[in-house]
Amino acid sequence: MPEKFQTPRGTRDFLPEEMIKRNFIINTFKKVFENYGFSPFETPAFEDFELLAAKGSGGDEIKDQIYYFKDKSNRELGLRFDLTVPMARVVANNPQLPKPFKRYCIARAWRYEEIRKDRFREFWQCDVDSVGSSSMESDAEILAVAVDSLKALGFKKFNIKLNNRKILSALIDYVDVPKKKKYDVFRAIDKLDNFGEDTVKDELKEVGLRPKQRKELLELIKMEGSPEEMIKKAEKILQSAIGFEGLSELKQIVEISKSYGFIDRIVIDFSLARGLDYYTGPIFEVIDTSGKNIGSLAGGGRYDELIELFGGRSTPATGISLGIERIVEVMEQEKMFKLPKTKIKVFVANVNEDVKTNTIEIANQLRDEGIPCQIDLMNRNLKKQLEFADSMDIPFSLIIGPDEVKKKTVKLRDMKKREESTLKLGKVIKKLKSI
Amino acid sequence: MPEKFQTPRGTRDFLPEEMIKRNFIINTFKKVFENYGFSPFETPAFEDFELLAAKGSGGDEIKDQIYYFKDKSNRELGLRFDLTVPMARVVANNPQLPKPFKRYCIARAWRYEEIRKDRFREFWQCDVDSVGSSSMESDAEILAVAVDSLKALGFKKFNIKLNNRKILSALIDYVDVPKKKKYDVFRAIDKLDNFGEDTVKDELKEVGLRPKQRKELLELIKMEGSPEEMIKKAEKILQSAIGFEGLSELKQIVEISKSYGFIDRIVIDFSLARGLDYYTGPIFEVIDTSGKNIGSLAGGGRYDELIELFGGRSTPATGISLGIERIVEVMEQEKMFKLPKTKIKVFVANVNEDVKTNTIEIANQLRDEGIPCQIDLMNRNLKKQLEFADSMDIPFSLIIGPDEVKKKTVKLRDMKKREESTLKLGKVIKKLKSI
Repeated sequence: MPEKFQTPRGTRDFLPEEMIKRNFIINTFKKVFENYGFSPFETPAFEDFELLAAKGSGGDEIKDQIYYFKDKSNRELGLRFDLTVPMARVVANNPQLPKPFKRYCIARAWRYEEIRKDRFREFWQCDVDSVGSSSMESDAEILAVAVDSLKALGFKKFNIKLNNRKILSALIDYVDVPKKKKYDVFRAIDKLDNFGEDTVKDELKEVGLRPKQRKELLELIKMEGSPEEMIKKAEKILQSAIGFEGLSELKQIVEISKSYGFIDRIVIDFSLARGLDYYTGPIFEVIDTSGKNIGSLAGGGRYDELIELFGGRSTPATGISLGIERIVEVMEQEKMFKLPKTKIKVFVANVNEDVKTNTIEIANQLRDEGIPCQIDLMNRNLKKQLEFADSMDIPFSLIIGPDEVKKKTVKLRDMKKREESTLKLGKVIKKLKSI
Repeated sequence: MPEKFQTPRGTRDFLPEEMIKRNFIINTFKKVFENYGFSPFETPAFEDFELLAAKGSGGDEIKDQIYYFKDKSNRELGLRFDLTVPMARVVANNPQLPKPFKRYCIARAWRYEEIRKDRFREFWQCDVDSVGSSSMESDAEILAVAVDSLKALGFKKFNIKLNNRKILSALIDYVDVPKKKKYDVFRAIDKLDNFGEDTVKDELKEVGLRPKQRKELLELIKMEGSPEEMIKKAEKILQSAIGFEGLSELKQIVEISKSYGFIDRIVIDFSLARGLDYYTGPIFEVIDTSGKNIGSLAGGGRYDELIELFGGRSTPATGISLGIERIVEVMEQEKMFKLPKTKIKVFVANVNEDVKTNTIEIANQLRDEGIPCQIDLMNRNLKKQLEFADSMDIPFSLIIGPDEVKKKTVKLRDMKKREESTLKLGKVIKKLKSI
C-alpha cells in the first residue's frame, strides 16, 4: 500500500466543522467592517525578503523566524509574517489611494516559531487598518470596530487596555533610561500582566537598569484607577512635552469612547507596551474578562512612520488585529457557537431508483426557491438515506416514492420530531420558507 | 528617501476595487455550493514536497514548476499547485469522514510558471468536489453546481464540453497506439480546439503515430453532433468493454442533465482530454460561447484512483475548478459587474468641530439599524467632506450642524440628485432602510 502523507508540521487542516466556525466569525466581522466603511484588500502570500527584513518591518533577525526561500531566478522571498507590512508597502507605492484608506484583510500569515499547543506556524490574521488620518478619532473608530465585532459574535465581558508609546517614552525618560535601551525596556514591562513583577524586575536588571530606576518604573507601570484618575496621576509625573502629547491623545480617545459608548470598557494600563517596534502613539489590547484568563482577543496601535520607512509619503496609520484562533478557542470554551453542521434544510430521499429523476427535479425546484437541499448520491436504500440525513443534522426530509409521484404529492418528515405528513410540493415550499 | 519595495514578481496586490469583484464572485459561489450541501474546507498553503511530487500528484518534474523550499529543520516543502491534491491527502488520512464528502475550497495556489498576460504565479482557485460516490449522479451534480454558479453571476451563453477518459482510451486502442504513449496522445489531441488540426497532427507525429493512425484518430476526435448522435456514432466504432463503459457513463450524465435542465448546454467533444493524468472517467469543461473566445470558465472530471494513490481506501471522487480570474476577465469585458465602490450608504458630515461627537452618536444609531455609514476622520471642512463622499459614490450624506443639533433634526442630502431636506433622524432611518 502506498505511504500516507501527513499535514505539514506546525500547520492544520480545517475540516468542514472547523471551517464553518471560522467562516461564521469571518462573515460576522466583514459585515461590521463594511458597516464602518472598511473595504476588502489582499496581497500575495509571499514578499520579497528585502521588505520583510527592512527597518520597521521584521529587521535582520527575521530570517530565522519566517519561511524563507529563493525562486528559480534566485530571488529571495519569504512568506509574510503579518498583514501590516504588505499593506504598508502597497500604500507607499500607491500615493493616489484616497484617504482615509480604510481596509480590512482576513488571510493567512506564517511564522517559523516553536510549535506549542494552539500555536501554529500558519495562522489566520484579521486586520482592520485606517490609513491617512492622524486624528485620535481614527484610533477610536478602530476600537469601536473591534468592540462591535466581538459583540456581534456574542462576547460580553471584555475590556480595552489602552496606553500610548509616547507615555512609555516619557516614563523611560523620567526614570532616566538611555534611549537606545527603549525597546528592550518596552518588551520587559509588557510582561507584567502575564509573567508578574519579578520577571519584569529581572529583565529590567538584565537591560541594565539600576535598582532605583527599576523601582520607580515598576511603580509607574503598576498604577491603577479609572481612566480619568490615571491621566490625572500621570500628568503630575510626566512633565515632558512627549508625555503631555501622549496623555492628550489618551484623553481624546477616552472622550470619544463616550460617544461610541465603550468608555466602561477602557482600562488605562501603563505596562502595556506591545512587542512590535513600529508603534508610535496609542497602543491597545482587547482582553477577555470572563474569568478564564486566556489573554488578548485583539491588539494594535498607531504606526505613523512605517509607510514612510517603506519609501512612501509620510502617512499616519492605525489598526488592530483580531485574533481569530484565540476567539475560536474562547467561543468553544464558552459554548458560544450555535452553528448547524450543514446549511442543508431538506434531504430529498428516494424510495427507489425509479423516482431518482423526480428527486432531482424536486430538489431543483426547492433550490430555485432558495431552500438548500441535497439528494442521495450513494445509491442507498431509504433507511440509509434517512440515517445519513440524521447524521448530518438535516432538519427535514422529503420522501419521494412512485405513489407520491403519481399523486403529485411529497411526504415531509420532520427529522427531530419524527413526524410525517403528505403534502403538495407548493405547501412544503411555503412551510420550509417560513421556518 | 528609503527605497520602495515592489509587489513580488508574478503576483498581484488586490486593491479594494478588485477585491470587491472577487468577493462578489466568491460569495455568490459559496451560496450556490452550500445550497447543494457542499461545505467549506481548507488546508495549509504549503505541503511536504513528497506529496506534491508523488505519483498521481505532480510527479518528479514538479520541482521546477512550483515554489520549493526547505524549512529550518531541512524539511522539503512546496507551495501547493492546486487544491485537489491536498484534499485527497486529507481524505486518505481521514477514512471516518462521512460519504459523500462534499467540500468546496476557495483559496490561493501557486505555480512557478512563465509570466504571461493574465497568467500569474499566484492565483485564486475555486474547487468543488464530491468524494465517495461512483455514481454519475455525482458528476452531473457537480455540473449542475457549475451551471448554477455561472448563472447566478449573470452568465447566459456557455456550454459544457463533455468527454470521458475511458472513451479516449478506447479511441487510442482502436487506432492501435501503445498504452505507454496514452498521456502524450491525450495532451496532443487536447490541443485541437485551441491550436487547430495541424498542431495536433504534428504532435501526434512526434509521439510516433503512423499516418493512418493520425488520420483515423483525427477523424474520431473531430466528430460533431447532438449528444445522442455522438453517442450513437461512437457506439458503432468503439466495440471494446472500456469504450462501452465510457459511453454508458456519458449517456447517464446526458440523461440526468435533462432533469437538471442543462441538457441544451452539453456538447460531446471527443477531443477534450484535459492535461492532468489523474482523471479516470468523465471529464468536462465549461466554455464561454458569447463569442469572444476566451477559453474555459471551469474544468474538471472524475479521479477515482487519487485517494488510494495517497494511501487511502479506494475512494471514487469527482470535481470541478471554477476559474475565478477568467470569470473576472469575462465579467469585466461584458460589463457584468454592477458593484458599488463601497457598501456605505450615508456619509455623516459635520459642519464644524463642535458637533463631531454628535456625528459619532448619529452614525452609531444608523449602524445599530443596520445602515452602513461613515464619518469624517480627516478634519475636513464640509465642502471637502461632501467631495469625499461623492468620490466614494456614497449615495447620501447627513449634514449635522449646531442648528440641527439644537432642533434635533438632520439634513439629508441625496448626493446624486443634489437635493436636501431637513428631517427628524427617525424619519431618515426609515427612509434609508426602505431604499
